[in-house]
Amino acid sequence: MAIPYYRRFIGSDKSAMETGIVVPSSTPSGLLAPPLSSGILTQDELKKIAAYKAVEYVESGMVLGLGTGSTAKHAVDRIGELLRQGKLKNIIGIPTSKKTHEQAVSLGIPLSDLDSHPVLDLAIDGADEVDPHLNLVKGRGGSLLREKMVEGACKKFVVIVDESKLVKYVGGSGLAMPVEIVPFCWNFTAARLQKLFEGSGCVAKLRTSGESGEPFVTDNGNYIVDLYFKEDIGDLNVASDEILRLAGVVEHGMFLGMATTLIVAGELGITIKNK
Amino acid sequence: MAIPYYRRFIGSDKSAMETGIVVPSSTPSGLLAPPLSSGILTQDELKKIAAYKAVEYVESGMVLGLGTGSTAKHAVDRIGELLRQGKLKNIIGIPTSKKTHEQAVSLGIPLSDLDSHPVLDLAIDGADEVDPHLNLVKGRGGSLLREKMVEGACKKFVVIVDESKLVKYVGGSGLAMPVEIVPFCWNFTAARLQKLFEGSGCVAKLRTSGESGEPFVTDNGNYIVDLYFKEDIGDLNVASDEILRLAGVVEHGMFLGMATTLIVAGELGITIKNK
Repeated sequence: MAIPYYRRFIGSDKSAMETGIVVPSSTPSGLLAPPLSSGILTQDELKKIAAYKAVEYVESGMVLGLGTGSTAKHAVDRIGELLRQGKLKNIIGIPTSKKTHEQAVSLGIPLSDLDSHPVLDLAIDGADEVDPHLNLVKGRGGSLLREKMVEGACKKFVVIVDESKLVKYVGGSGLAMPVEIVPFCWNFTAARLQKLFEGSGCVAKLRTSGESGEPFVTDNGNYIVDLYFKEDIGDLNVASDEILRLAGVVEHGMFLGMATTLIVAGELGITIKNK
Repeated sequence: MAIPYYRRFIGSDKSAMETGIVVPSSTPSGLLAPPLSSGILTQDELKKIAAYKAVEYVESGMVLGLGTGSTAKHAVDRIGELLRQGKLKNIIGIPTSKKTHEQAVSLGIPLSDLDSHPVLDLAIDGADEVDPHLNLVKGRGGSLLREKMVEGACKKFVVIVDESKLVKYVGGSGLAMPVEIVPFCWNFTAARLQKLFEGSGCVAKLRTSGESGEPFVTDNGNYIVDLYFKEDIGDLNVASDEILRLAGVVEHGMFLGMATTLIVAGELGITIKNK
């Protein structure tokens, strides 16, 4: 059971968290004033609570994967703050996108890359969907490939979301499952992807950039095809292999069996689930 | 049994070819004078013989995949010649590389792409290795991804090689099995590829451009890591999935179960194998 924020001042729950029990949240170090019992938190406040909670897992000396997106941004901000305050030392960050790279540089977080640090201690990142088995959909922000490379190299991967991201099955939110593809004959590849999941009522759409209507281009110079499913696509590992076998596909946004900890911030408090 | 070239003037073997029997070669339309019984053909002459043989499968009105490389180049030349002579009509070519695109344009072959023609009648291309099950290694020329997209969309895929390309197992020539990867942290991806096949004595090397020593860049803006195996890597379908599951990998050079016909030109004649 999740515990309301106004009851959260009961000390550290770190040991309980490790056991995988749903626990009350400790205070995210003075970030938020305790909400009124009737207070309704915005989605961004919930994201911030989850992010700050995740940063409690960070210890000095760690090599850290730095996620991308509106939730992960709060975690990166918080890491920068703790470094400035001297509460964290000797952190090396591995950013998962050009955008996060820029953010980390602006915060003075020392950075490196996978070539120099092929094994990471911990990564913290958001997700667009989380299913009951801690399988994720990521990449609506467009950084799925670098995120998957970095987060696949981590000993621990803490996923932070607000409760709106919890789904019964991948695609269950009705929002996109993104697939990064090479630009060459993208229409052909999009059609093959749609056909692959036609039994689940799949619709494939090329992602475009807001105003221009031009194709959205990833950090790797590729395009994104967003897949929308009407129904559950079944065994995700099978689906993953089928997608990856299509020549023209670079990577997809399903992160299967990668998350080790899930932190969910909801109106009634923080819920933590370990794998 | 392959039949020597000096015995090859025995008419069309098209029907025999279709049955999968090893057959003598018909004359590649006046291309080559019959060699002396002691005549030794160069490797390029053998490539040309295989290529011209393959073009006999081409019929007017076909949508054709046009391969890339020193052997496929002869086939594209030959298609251009037959079009000029009016012996072929209404051909639409789908090139598998920028280089082949340029060659076809210079020959006046009408071109299109997979977006407009997602199903092809026939593709003709070379290979770097062919195993006894007609599994191929391709991409030493760097065009593996576009080749795989085009040739995966063909009803028939005729592979043309000289006999030096026949191997007992993939990697058996001691030459490279190429993997196209994103440039981002390529060293990390190369190390993971090498580790994947460490049991087969795998060595992974980034492909560089001849003189500059800079990384070779594919038509899709990616890098190539060449894998060298000391031993058989076992089940190729398993190996394929393992490679494709690595985030950072775009495609690999094993073409499994795709070739429908193999044409081999050797010192003793042409051998044709159907699947």
